[in-house]
Amino acid sequence: MSLTIKSHFASPTYLSFTTKPSRFTGYNTKIRPNSIYHFNPLKLTYYQPKKMQAPVQYSPAPVIKSSLIEPDGGALVDLVVPEGERGAKTIEAESLPKVRLTKIDVEWVHVISEGWANPLKGFMREDEYLQSLHFNSLRLKDGSIVNMSLPIVLAIDDETKERIGSSSHVGLAGPDGDLMAILRSIEIYKHNKEERIARTWGTTAPGLPYVEEVIIPAGNCLIGGDLEVLKPIKYNDGLDHYRLSPKQLRKEFDRRNADAVFAFQLRNPVHNGHALLMNDTRRRLLEMGFKNPILLLHPLGGFTKADDVPLDVRMEQHSKVLEDGVLDPETTIVAIFPSPMHYAGPTEVQWHAKARINAGANFYIVGRDPAGMGHPTEKRDLYDPDHGKKVLSMAPGLEKLNILPFRVAAYDIVAKKMAFFDPSRAKDFLFISGTKMRTYARTGENPPDGFMCPGGWEVLVKYYESLQAEEATQQPAAVSS
Amino acid sequence: MSLTIKSHFASPTYLSFTTKPSRFTGYNTKIRPNSIYHFNPLKLTYYQPKKMQAPVQYSPAPVIKSSLIEPDGGALVDLVVPEGERGAKTIEAESLPKVRLTKIDVEWVHVISEGWANPLKGFMREDEYLQSLHFNSLRLKDGSIVNMSLPIVLAIDDETKERIGSSSHVGLAGPDGDLMAILRSIEIYKHNKEERIARTWGTTAPGLPYVEEVIIPAGNCLIGGDLEVLKPIKYNDGLDHYRLSPKQLRKEFDRRNADAVFAFQLRNPVHNGHALLMNDTRRRLLEMGFKNPILLLHPLGGFTKADDVPLDVRMEQHSKVLEDGVLDPETTIVAIFPSPMHYAGPTEVQWHAKARINAGANFYIVGRDPAGMGHPTEKRDLYDPDHGKKVLSMAPGLEKLNILPFRVAAYDIVAKKMAFFDPSRAKDFLFISGTKMRTYARTGENPPDGFMCPGGWEVLVKYYESLQAEEATQQPAAVSS
Repeated sequence: MSLTIKSHFASPTYLSFTTKPSRFTGYNTKIRPNSIYHFNPLKLTYYQPKKMQAPVQYSPAPVIKSSLIEPDGGALVDLVVPEGERGAKTIEAESLPKVRLTKIDVEWVHVISEGWANPLKGFMREDEYLQSLHFNSLRLKDGSIVNMSLPIVLAIDDETKERIGSSSHVGLAGPDGDLMAILRSIEIYKHNKEERIARTWGTTAPGLPYVEEVIIPAGNCLIGGDLEVLKPIKYNDGLDHYRLSPKQLRKEFDRRNADAVFAFQLRNPVHNGHALLMNDTRRRLLEMGFKNPILLLHPLGGFTKADDVPLDVRMEQHSKVLEDGVLDPETTIVAIFPSPMHYAGPTEVQWHAKARINAGANFYIVGRDPAGMGHPTEKRDLYDPDHGKKVLSMAPGLEKLNILPFRVAAYDIVAKKMAFFDPSRAKDFLFISGTKMRTYARTGENPPDGFMCPGGWEVLVKYYESLQAEEATQQPAAVSS
Repeated sequence: MSLTIKSHFASPTYLSFTTKPSRFTGYNTKIRPNSIYHFNPLKLTYYQPKKMQAPVQYSPAPVIKSSLIEPDGGALVDLVVPEGERGAKTIEAESLPKVRLTKIDVEWVHVISEGWANPLKGFMREDEYLQSLHFNSLRLKDGSIVNMSLPIVLAIDDETKERIGSSSHVGLAGPDGDLMAILRSIEIYKHNKEERIARTWGTTAPGLPYVEEVIIPAGNCLIGGDLEVLKPIKYNDGLDHYRLSPKQLRKEFDRRNADAVFAFQLRNPVHNGHALLMNDTRRRLLEMGFKNPILLLHPLGGFTKADDVPLDVRMEQHSKVLEDGVLDPETTIVAIFPSPMHYAGPTEVQWHAKARINAGANFYIVGRDPAGMGHPTEKRDLYDPDHGKKVLSMAPGLEKLNILPFRVAAYDIVAKKMAFFDPSRAKDFLFISGTKMRTYARTGENPPDGFMCPGGWEVLVKYYESLQAEEATQQPAAVSS
């Protein structure tokens, strides 16, 4: 999520709720006229009055735990083998042909095993792959549709395919060779990389990070099947306690008696513009009649491109933001979303939203150019910055999710703080891009007062200092070699 | 549709009906378990018994005209201005800023105006464009989904955009400057060609015919709006009588008391392999209990690539095929499908099928590599030859259509005729590709007896002779210049 966040909605109101309200207010009815809100009975207590043109009525009902949005396709999958069966399954896995996973494959095993991609039970077989690629959704056995915008696939090379032969199941080994999982009832099919890239990213230009680092080096076959993970995936990087599964998150939302959960996906440090809109969203939800909206601050923890701020630094920065009181720890849960990043804009933002449904979020905040980046070979954004929220608001399978697009926040040089941009006094606003922020931190220059809480900023400055120190020690070695 | 037609279904049965039967036979239930057959009550009289494991029962009910499959999204649009209003609308159109159409834009005006793209009422606005590009479908106001796999858009250049200014409506003028239509309540948005091409074709390699001839030269903006066509589109090429609208086709099916309509899309001459499967489909439908299945032989009439056989030659060839009795004129309707060809494989075959729903067809025949072609820069098919039928069978909005994949037909050198390929005596079969067929015709060599009816073959030979004569007269001129 980039720093300057523009909404395409001309409406001067604070936040535009394009999904659920549309049914009752008539706003945006062309896009999504017939949303069905059977997943969150509490929401109706809010929306019903709006439909009747009466003032907002607050639900007199007590908070009901079952009000959490249902996972896509029914119950959450849990593909981790129960402890009692691990020994036998490990012995079985050892007897099977092996597929060696990359670090990023392991991230996907993690994602699938905990139900982020519910109801997906393993790496995609060809039917699922084709539906994902062409329709960004899967049709389930009962005829219902779930969103599935990214192919979640496992690539193998010809040699591995040869080795698998006619075996129905394979063992999956981690990068270090440790057996991690079994893939059952496998199907091997062609990995047409060009088509996959073109349909997922809308470009085949060289320089897309996930493409260059994951797809191009991968094998020419894909292997789908049902996943059984021998034990929970751990990274032992000191951050595992942040890696809450959808099940754990739901439990925590229940424990806190959340009656609304709003998710904020990010892969950058939190500045006060982000905080403004998260706090403002909570205020709006309270106004709507929700008693206890909980923020899921949900940084992405998998693969990111080289110049993004690393996960450990971001997690430290986020915790400072809570320590400094910019966000309220009482109503905020910080956790890591284990998915790798595609930087596939409108296609990927659907995945980001869909996965959060599975974690129990019924509101999803979306800004300018979500999951976007610069075009790898042209001087422009790869995606139209408004397409992400438009595509998200129309995406099949996401009808039950409330999409919260937000207005651009920028630095108000008069008020000396981050504020929603006011076009009537445009000259008072300073737009600080992600690149600009990184330049500040790298050069040791301070950003304007009120851009970010001091504790959080300090984390970034230290990170870039350490980076420069590292570069300085590496440079002579490189020259002398 | 290419000559060698392979089915990916291992089943040794004649034709595999993947869509409707799947619900009852269990076959392919993973793909489409929950089809709803509310559009053709007659079909239930067939399938119901199958479900009950009873022998096929023939419907005792008289043929009901309303049994024709319903158009997508309700009543067929008819965007041609009633005669009485033409004068006034033409005067209005003259007062509006003008957009000059290309020949292919006119083909799309034709397509939209007659309801082939039902319920589309004009060139796509951005919401429709994005849904088409990302989801291959449109969500309607009532929440239902219709298939819409190709963006049907009108491009304008910056200068035209400038000229339109703040006007809400524009006049559309044909290539010769004649006013043809009004586009109302317009919306102008960005034409990101790279993204459109990548998502539609799954490649951005140079050399895709529609891309090179239509998209690359087009403007950088798209203009959407509601279409009003001043008078029916005519081409005055002696083939207009073949250009039956969906409304006219439906009337004709009703007149013939059709209780099943099976469509065959093609852009090549009809050989006896095609005829075999069309006749065989009819036989199968009769066996199913349909009393009067009608074949819609539906060659594509819009833009095709330079080395395809031209429309007038194909129409002459098709009429010979009927004259020679290869297809039965009593149960066949030959008409022109006015759409331009994209050669976009699995994405385009959905459009081909969807448009035929609007014309009243409830069965759609699909072969190997529909709407496919060779990769423009690599030595391989651009698409996996099986993906077309797979994608079609899973496509959103096509659940009500019966997809008929068919087995490969080839020349049986023992029986001296086109026959379904029998792998147990593979060496007896000769595969004659489209390229091979064209080479035969070009060199004056006769194909094997029984490959195509003599009358039809003669048409092709004459065409290639005339082409060579033309080339011969042009060559010296080119050399001397």
